[in-house]
Amino acid sequence: MGPGPSDVAPSVLRAMSLPVLGHLDPLFVAMMDEIKAMLRVVFQTKNAMTFPVSGTGSAGMEFCFVNLIEPGDEVIVGVNGVFGGRMVDVAERCGAKVTKVESPWGKIIEPSQIAEALKGRRPKIVAIVHAETSTGALTPVEEISKLAHQAGALFLLDTVTSLGGWPVRVDEWEVDEIYSGTQKCLSCPPGLAPVSLSDRAMAVATNRKTKVQSWYLDVNLLASYWGQERVYHHTAPISMNYALHEALRLVLIEGLESRWKRHQANHELLKKGLTELGLSIASQPGHQLWQLNAVTVPEGVDEATVRKALLNDFSIEVGAGLGPLKGKIWRVGLMGETSKPEHVETFLRALRGILKK
Amino acid sequence: MGPGPSDVAPSVLRAMSLPVLGHLDPLFVAMMDEIKAMLRVVFQTKNAMTFPVSGTGSAGMEFCFVNLIEPGDEVIVGVNGVFGGRMVDVAERCGAKVTKVESPWGKIIEPSQIAEALKGRRPKIVAIVHAETSTGALTPVEEISKLAHQAGALFLLDTVTSLGGWPVRVDEWEVDEIYSGTQKCLSCPPGLAPVSLSDRAMAVATNRKTKVQSWYLDVNLLASYWGQERVYHHTAPISMNYALHEALRLVLIEGLESRWKRHQANHELLKKGLTELGLSIASQPGHQLWQLNAVTVPEGVDEATVRKALLNDFSIEVGAGLGPLKGKIWRVGLMGETSKPEHVETFLRALRGILKK
Repeated sequence: MGPGPSDVAPSVLRAMSLPVLGHLDPLFVAMMDEIKAMLRVVFQTKNAMTFPVSGTGSAGMEFCFVNLIEPGDEVIVGVNGVFGGRMVDVAERCGAKVTKVESPWGKIIEPSQIAEALKGRRPKIVAIVHAETSTGALTPVEEISKLAHQAGALFLLDTVTSLGGWPVRVDEWEVDEIYSGTQKCLSCPPGLAPVSLSDRAMAVATNRKTKVQSWYLDVNLLASYWGQERVYHHTAPISMNYALHEALRLVLIEGLESRWKRHQANHELLKKGLTELGLSIASQPGHQLWQLNAVTVPEGVDEATVRKALLNDFSIEVGAGLGPLKGKIWRVGLMGETSKPEHVETFLRALRGILKK
Repeated sequence: MGPGPSDVAPSVLRAMSLPVLGHLDPLFVAMMDEIKAMLRVVFQTKNAMTFPVSGTGSAGMEFCFVNLIEPGDEVIVGVNGVFGGRMVDVAERCGAKVTKVESPWGKIIEPSQIAEALKGRRPKIVAIVHAETSTGALTPVEEISKLAHQAGALFLLDTVTSLGGWPVRVDEWEVDEIYSGTQKCLSCPPGLAPVSLSDRAMAVATNRKTKVQSWYLDVNLLASYWGQERVYHHTAPISMNYALHEALRLVLIEGLESRWKRHQANHELLKKGLTELGLSIASQPGHQLWQLNAVTVPEGVDEATVRKALLNDFSIEVGAGLGPLKGKIWRVGLMGETSKPEHVETFLRALRGILKK
């Protein structure tokens, strides 16, 4: 029940113990096509370039920036937690001139803030974290995407913690480049980063003046392996792709709408129980994530002691606060397989016992 | 029996189906220490910074260059196959001025060639591929390492295909930076890249004037996660680390010396059988890899037809030739778990049948 990795279904764990095929084996190549097709459903997109990058979510972030940015490009990044801050660092390492649009941790990035930042600027990219794993706040992005496009920018979105647990609609929202991780609401072990690029983003990546600074993450090379040419690039993590294939299958069997509803219902169950314990959720009301709950640590309680007791006495992992929220919140994940009423009840009972409420 | 991924032992496959721990869970953190300790034995080094990068072997290559190179640095790269060529591309994307030292594909890089290239130059790095997976040639590197150090350069070595199947002695050979992959002679599924840095290489990475251009692969950040601080960087691929832990355990149970001898014995068995079929190994005599055998395609035989028959009728995968060797060789892997006399015999029988010898 931490901020990820989430619990993994038995059939996904079993998938990884299947014999390892070659990365150009016809059977594996067919599986790659199925993974791409299922990812398109989960991302709600028709984008041809939709596939898993062979690294964890942070590699997905780097993939997105490194392919679009050339030295000197202007980028606007919304920063309201750890991952917005990481985006700034990654973009700057690509040579971007970054303008930060900041909100206090736990609050969302407002469209008006982006509109203000866009005044007199023509950035190449506007980048936002959809679900901030470090604060539990969900920034609505439809309006921000429109503003970005009106200014001639590409819209880049981090959905590491939202994909599979909260609506993500790439085509409807006109997201140009999006990345996620496997170990949150998709309930697959960490190790792959699903990404999707619009044709507009691909055109930018293809028509660069300079080479992409990362060979490993160069979408122009990856397109030949994950596309129809099947040209050898790197050796894909075969077993991780087995796991993702099975995890996506389970997502589609449940159905996206049902899955979102389940995440919402268990969040509400948790919130009700927390209220009964006199506790509350720290992130901005009306924008609280269902899958990552930032629970305010009560006055006079040492958060680390409670966290250790949860782990050692009840085998429940929850996350600590980061940055300005260190010591002030617990981060309780209800992601994918972890989002079950029985887990909520067990957690509430354990917390009640530890806090002697 | 391709150029990797190799067969994986049942206990390694089973390890991946264990429940996924958090990346900061005390149990996982203890496992990280064991992985580092076992990798030090396999690399034959005392280097503190010895750990698996969270990507495949090519990410390991990029890790090595990206951490040491700053724009304008001079690098000498030995090129005698695909992976030397890839090193050049990766180094140039880091802003390096690269001098290529080339040998024909299938031949080794001679110390005299490196000595010649070093005349009047003070490069920052001399980089060599130990075992060229694309040609089956093994370049001895002790002399080259000495030449590099005499010129004040760091010595960088690719051991993707050699580690675990051929002697690799990091400390004795004074290798400053080394990378490998998990899916060759370590017989673990692809997804991680074991690396090791000497203190000298770490000092260069730590005292850079510019930030490492990759956030994901920045050793200064990774050192805080894989070191004693355990600062969150990215979510490590937990299940892949379970697999690597078990794969390394099996390597150490067998013993490095025994493992090398096994690889040699099965290579010799294959070579004997090939000779009986009138076939030969294409790479330079005296420098032929035990674990990757470049078999010359006989005159008048279509290599793809034979390769497909091996896969479809006998379930044996072998690799095709790449670049100038396309259509001219089959690449027969005898790596890790795949290196067994019964596999050699089965392959020879199948090949004899297909070629109607």
